[in-house]
Amino acid sequence: MISSTANSRVKRVASLREKSRERTRENVFIVEGIKMFEEAPTDKIKEVYYMEEKLFGQGFDDRFPGLKEKIQACARAGAAIETVTEEVLLKMSDTKSPQGILCVMEQFSYDSEDLVERALAKKKEGCSPLFLLLEDIQDPGNLGTMIRTAEGAGADGIFMTSGTVDIYNPKTIRATMGSLYRVPFVRVQDLSDITSLLQKNGITVYAAHLKGEKYYHETDYSGGSAFLIGNEGNGLKKETADLADCYLKIPMEGKLESLNAAIAAALLMYQSRQ
Amino acid sequence: MISSTANSRVKRVASLREKSRERTRENVFIVEGIKMFEEAPTDKIKEVYYMEEKLFGQGFDDRFPGLKEKIQACARAGAAIETVTEEVLLKMSDTKSPQGILCVMEQFSYDSEDLVERALAKKKEGCSPLFLLLEDIQDPGNLGTMIRTAEGAGADGIFMTSGTVDIYNPKTIRATMGSLYRVPFVRVQDLSDITSLLQKNGITVYAAHLKGEKYYHETDYSGGSAFLIGNEGNGLKKETADLADCYLKIPMEGKLESLNAAIAAALLMYQSRQ
Repeated sequence: MISSTANSRVKRVASLREKSRERTRENVFIVEGIKMFEEAPTDKIKEVYYMEEKLFGQGFDDRFPGLKEKIQACARAGAAIETVTEEVLLKMSDTKSPQGILCVMEQFSYDSEDLVERALAKKKEGCSPLFLLLEDIQDPGNLGTMIRTAEGAGADGIFMTSGTVDIYNPKTIRATMGSLYRVPFVRVQDLSDITSLLQKNGITVYAAHLKGEKYYHETDYSGGSAFLIGNEGNGLKKETADLADCYLKIPMEGKLESLNAAIAAALLMYQSRQ
Repeated sequence: MISSTANSRVKRVASLREKSRERTRENVFIVEGIKMFEEAPTDKIKEVYYMEEKLFGQGFDDRFPGLKEKIQACARAGAAIETVTEEVLLKMSDTKSPQGILCVMEQFSYDSEDLVERALAKKKEGCSPLFLLLEDIQDPGNLGTMIRTAEGAGADGIFMTSGTVDIYNPKTIRATMGSLYRVPFVRVQDLSDITSLLQKNGITVYAAHLKGEKYYHETDYSGGSAFLIGNEGNGLKKETADLADCYLKIPMEGKLESLNAAIAAALLMYQSRQ
C-alpha cells in the first residue's frame, strides 16, 4: 500500500494528470472513477490505484459487483495494481472527493485512412458516413461533450487540429462519459489533408456559417457528411471555412450571434441521421 | 477612483459575485466584460466599475465606440459610476484577466401566467409556444448554454426548480452570451403547477426518457411544447417525469446511456421548430 504523498509514483501520476506534455511523453493518460474504470478497455490499463477500504470495506461487498473482477483482469493482463490511502488518492486525483479508484492508461492511436475506409464499408450497408472536424476547440468540457454526442449520433470519427485542447485533459475525459473509449479520433496539424481525403471519397464537407446558403434541416446528408466546427470565440478560420463544399445555416431567433460549438455540432450530427 | 481592495464597496461586490444568498438579499447580480455590459438593459444597471486607462487610455479612443455613451446613459438613468484600478477590478472579478468593466444589475422578474399568455398570443400569429422546464440542473455552464440555445430556438421562457444552480452564477451568466437579458425565466418550487398551467392552455409537456414511445424527430410539435430536462447525474425524478403528456426517445448509438442535458434540450427545442 502506498501511504505517502511524497512517493515518487504519486508525484508522477499527479504530474501526468496536470501536464499534457508529460502525458504525451509517456503516451498515457489518467482515468478516474468507478464507471470510467469499469468501461475502460482492459488491455489499455497499465496501472490501477484504489482504496481497498472505501471500495471493498465491510458492508460494501455488493456495492460494486464486477469491480474486483475487473481489477483482477487488469492484473492478469500485466497491469501494476496498488492500494493507496485516501490522502494519496486525493493527491493523484483531479476531484475533491475521489470515488476510490484511478488508473493510468495507454493513449489511443487511430489511422485516418483506416477510419475513412471503415466508414465507406458501413456506407455499403446503408449507413451514411459521419465525421466531425474540430478546429482549435478550447473548452475541455465542450470537447468532451462533442465526443459524447458523436457516439450518440453514431459518428465514424473525430479529427481535431493540434490547436484543440488536449483530449486527455481530465475535464474532457469526464465530460465524455466513457465515449472517449469508443469514438475514434485523430489529431492533425490542420484540416486540409483530411477534408481532401473525405471529399475524394464522396463525403461532403459542411461548415455551419453565418453566410450559409442552405438551412441545416433542409439538406440531404445521405451521401455522407463531415462537419467543420470552429473555435468557441472566433469560429472557423477563413482558410478552414474555404475547405467546405457547402455552408449551412442554423436558424437563430433573438439577438444571438452564434450557438455554443457543442450545441451546433449536436444539431448537425443528429440532423444528418434523420 | 477606488484604488484600495480594502474598500467596503469592493468587498461587497466580491461577496455578491461569490454568494447566491447575498445576491438574493440585495436583489442584484454582477455582470462582467464589455459585450455583456453593452448588451445589458440600461434601466437594470445600478452600479458601473471600470478602468479608465484600460478602456479609454491614449490610442484606445476608437476601440470601443459606444461604450462611453453607454456609461453616460447609465449615469443619466441614476446608476453609480466609479473608476477603479486594475487591482481593485481583479478583486471584484471572477476572471483572471478582466476586460476592464463590471456592473451591478437588478435581478429580472417575470410572471409565469404572463409568459404563457404571451406565448398564446404569438400562437395566434402562427408561432408555436415553446418552453423549457428544468429540474435541478447543477452545472452552471450547462444552464447558461441552455439559456443561450433557448434564445436561438426562440423559446418563450424557461422554468427551473429551486434545486437548479443559481442563474446569476458568474459562470452561468458568461455561458449565456447575453441571452440572460432576453430569455424570460421563472424559478419555481417544483414543476407541477407550471405543467398544469401549460396543459390547461393546450401546450403539450414532453420528457426525454429512456422509456420514450415516440422518436423526437417523428413528433408533431405544432400545438406548442414544453420540454422537461432533468438533472445531469440522475435525470428526471419519477414524479416529475409523470407530469409529462408524452415520453420522447432520442436515438443513441454505441454504449451511451444518455446525452448531456444541454444537448438533449437543444435537439428537442430545435426539432420543435422544424
